[in-house]
Amino acid sequence: MGIVMDRSALTDFLALEFPQVADSFAIERVDANELVARLIVGPQHLRPGGTVSGPSIFALADLAIYCAILSRIGPVALAVTTSASVDFMRKPAAGRDLLAHCRLLKLGRLLAVADALITSEGQPDPVARASMTYAIPPKA
Amino acid sequence: MGIVMDRSALTDFLALEFPQVADSFAIERVDANELVARLIVGPQHLRPGGTVSGPSIFALADLAIYCAILSRIGPVALAVTTSASVDFMRKPAAGRDLLAHCRLLKLGRLLAVADALITSEGQPDPVARASMTYAIPPKA
Amino acid sequence: MGIVMDRSALTDFLALEFPQVADSFAIERVDANELVARLIVGPQHLRPGGTVSGPSIFALADLAIYCAILSRIGPVALAVTTSASVDFMRKPAAGRDLLAHCRLLKLGRLLAVADALITSEGQPDPVARASMTYAIPPKA
Amino acid sequence: MGIVMDRSALTDFLALEFPQVADSFAIERVDANELVARLIVGPQHLRPGGTVSGPSIFALADLAIYCAILSRIGPVALAVTTSASVDFMRKPAAGRDLLAHCRLLKLGRLLAVADALITSEGQPDPVARASMTYAIPPKA
Repeated sequence: MGIVMDRSALTDFLALEFPQVADSFAIERVDANELVARLIVGPQHLRPGGTVSGPSIFALADLAIYCAILSRIGPVALAVTTSASVDFMRKPAAGRDLLAHCRLLKLGRLLAVADALITSEGQPDPVARASMTYAIPPKA
Repeated sequence: MGIVMDRSALTDFLALEFPQVADSFAIERVDANELVARLIVGPQHLRPGGTVSGPSIFALADLAIYCAILSRIGPVALAVTTSASVDFMRKPAAGRDLLAHCRLLKLGRLLAVADALITSEGQPDPVARASMTYAIPPKA
Repeated sequence: MGIVMDRSALTDFLALEFPQVADSFAIERVDANELVARLIVGPQHLRPGGTVSGPSIFALADLAIYCAILSRIGPVALAVTTSASVDFMRKPAAGRDLLAHCRLLKLGRLLAVADALITSEGQPDPVARASMTYAIPPKA
Repeated sequence: MGIVMDRSALTDFLALEFPQVADSFAIERVDANELVARLIVGPQHLRPGGTVSGPSIFALADLAIYCAILSRIGPVALAVTTSASVDFMRKPAAGRDLLAHCRLLKLGRLLAVADALITSEGQPDPVARASMTYAIPPKA
C-alpha cells in the first residue's frame, strides 16, 4: 500500500487534531520503509537527573506508530491503540532529542502492528524499543 | 516484606522528587495486598473527544507500580522501568478520574514485577491493564 | 455474559480439537470469575535441571485464556491469539503441576483480553503472569 | 562485543544441552548483525488446519534470542527469560519452515534484550514478531 499522507500532510494533521502535543513532536521522514518521528525534548519531558521520562518515550512511540498507519490509510480513520509493549534499555543522552524509527509490520483490515526503535539523536545504541497494535474501525 | 512507606510518605516523596507531575496523581491507599493510585484528570491528559490519552494511562500505571515497589523498599532505591506491557480495553468514562489498582507480584533482589488494572472511578469494567518490570539497583 | 461451555464441555472440546496436546492439560474449574487450567507436567515440558520450559508455560497460559473465551462464546468461534505478554518470575517447584488462574478482562465483538497468573500447585507465589489478546472472527 | 560462539558451536551446544528439542531447530547463520534460526516444522508443531501453533512460534523466538545472547557471552552463562512480548500477525504458510531473524538490542551486565521477526521461509511478510528480556547471572 502506498503513502497517502506524506510528511507535510501528517504535520498539518497533528497541528489540527492534537494541538496540545503537536509542539513536542515532528515528523522527520516517511517513506515505504519507515517513518521517523522526533520528540523535541523540553523540560516537561524530563525526570530528576535530566533523563527523558518513560511516559514521554511511550508518547513518542505511540505517535510515530499512529502516523505510520495514517500515512497508509489517510486521516479519515480513527485508529486506537489496543496493545503496547515497551522495553527501556538505556538512559537517553542528556540534551538531545529522541528519534523513533518506525516500521509497519502489518496493515490488516481490522488490526495494524508496528514497532519502533528509539534513539538519542546522533547515538547508535537504542534507548528503547516499542511495539503496538492499533484497531482500525471498519469503514462506514 | 512489610510496608516501609505508607500513603503519607509516598505522597511527600512524590511532591519532593517529581514536582512536575505530582499535581496529577494521588496515592489513595497502600496495604499488603494492593496500592491504589489516582490520575486527577485535567485538560492536559485529554485527547480530542474528551478521552484520556494513552501516555497518561501509561504514566498512571508506571507511577502506581513505582510507588508499590517503594512502599516495600523505601525511598533510597533508584528503581527504573525496564519493560512495560499495556492493553487498552475500553474508552475511559468522560469527566471521571482514573484509578490504578496495583499488585506486586515479585520483589526480587534485582527485579520487581507488578501489574495494575485501570478503571474509571465508579465503573467496574477495566479501561486498561498494565504490567511492568523494574530494575532495582544493588545496594551500595 | 454467562458460561455457555462448562468444564466438561471444554474438556470434550479439547480432546476432540486438540488431541495432540489434550493429554497435557486439564480444565480444573470455570465460573463467572475465573478459569483454572492445569499443566500436567511430564518429561516433554522440562528443561535441563528439571524446570518447566518457557514455551510450556506459554502454552498453558494460551490454552487457559482460549478456554476462558470459549466458555463465554461457545465452540463455534475460531479465535486466534494476536498479542501475548509474559513475565517469568520464579522457577517452578520441582515435581509439581502448574496451574493457570485466568480472568477475562474484556469480551468485545472483535477482541477479547484476559490475563493469567501461573503458580506451582500448592505454592502461593506466582511462577509467571501472562496477558493475551484474541481476535474473534465476525459471525457468518 | 564479538561473536564467541559461531553457528557450529551453537549447534553443538543445543544438541548437548537441549536434546529434547534440538531436532526441531537449526541455527542458520550468526554474524555481528543478526542470528537466523529455523523451526523445522513437523506434525508436533501443528494445530488443526495445518498452522504452526503459537507455543511453537514462541519456542522458536525464545531459542533464537537465547542463542543470539550466547553467541556473544559464551556457553558458561545460564541466562533465563524474564519478559516476552509476541505479536502474531499472519497465518504461517502451509508446508514451510519458519525462520526467526533476531537482532540483539542490548547486552548489559545483568539484562539482555533482543527482538525477532518470524517469517515462513520464502515469504516476505512476517508471521510474528517477538521481543524478550533475559537475565544474565553474575559471574562467579
